[in-house]
Amino acid sequence: MRVLGIDPGLVNMGWGVIVADGSRIAHVANGIIRSQGVSLAARLCDLHRGLVAVIAAHAPDAAAVEQTFVNKDAVGTLKLGQARGIALLAPAQAGLEVGEYAPNAVKKAIVGVGHAQKQQVEHMVRFTLPGVTLAGADAADALAIAICHARHLQSRSLRIKVVA
Amino acid sequence: MRVLGIDPGLVNMGWGVIVADGSRIAHVANGIIRSQGVSLAARLCDLHRGLVAVIAAHAPDAAAVEQTFVNKDAVGTLKLGQARGIALLAPAQAGLEVGEYAPNAVKKAIVGVGHAQKQQVEHMVRFTLPGVTLAGADAADALAIAICHARHLQSRSLRIKVVA
Repeated sequence: MRVLGIDPGLVNMGWGVIVADGSRIAHVANGIIRSQGVSLAARLCDLHRGLVAVIAAHAPDAAAVEQTFVNKDAVGTLKLGQARGIALLAPAQAGLEVGEYAPNAVKKAIVGVGHAQKQQVEHMVRFTLPGVTLAGADAADALAIAICHARHLQSRSLRIKVVA
Repeated sequence: MRVLGIDPGLVNMGWGVIVADGSRIAHVANGIIRSQGVSLAARLCDLHRGLVAVIAAHAPDAAAVEQTFVNKDAVGTLKLGQARGIALLAPAQAGLEVGEYAPNAVKKAIVGVGHAQKQQVEHMVRFTLPGVTLAGADAADALAIAICHARHLQSRSLRIKVVA
């Protein structure tokens, strides 16, 4: 099963694809889509086009998006919300179910604690995917989301087997 | 020139199309796209599909979207931001330039004052587009945005004529 993780952002949108086979996880690809449009609408078009290309190239079976950090800066929250709308739309249009995880849930799944530092998350991503070359911090976060989602799907499938 | 106005919302997205010929403005169509998906991603898909259908049916030459009201409720701001991302994306994908207007700018253009009540805006929309049947309050707001954008484009074209 191939899992796409997306770390939404209006200027830089991180993405990462992993392949999960039981408890084994391997890296497929990761990158950052940079929006260059002069208007907000043009930037959102860039992000959508980029995500559609990533999905076409790597054919994921599932996707997950980080829940945007909601802070006191309403203007920043609105901007992130707009980018996040695109991050949810593109995989859903491709017929994928889209999981959503709060940043703390991702950290808990990867590092073991919800208040882990960004560097710890990147360290665990490198540890889980040996030899990976990261396109940047946003791509590392996206891979962390993909790993978190793969583990969640795996534990769900195990639970279903136990119950069946 | 046909102008599409959009009042973004995650559950109800209002839209309205008018035709402007110099200072004359007439109603073309208005409606509300209701998202029914069970997940956030599915709802955003519904909204995008609906807007693409509206643009295909009415072939606007320009579009404008209301700037989301940014309030103290960060979760609500984020939800609106996600819907707004879709409202900006769909016309931009169709090659349209997308104008953005703050709610107060729309009220000022339609009613003459920035702090006008919602009922006053609806009244002026009915006055400007005699005999119009409104699909609801969100559709009235969308028509107001379209009228505001048409007037803005007209005054810009007049300025260009004066300068030329």
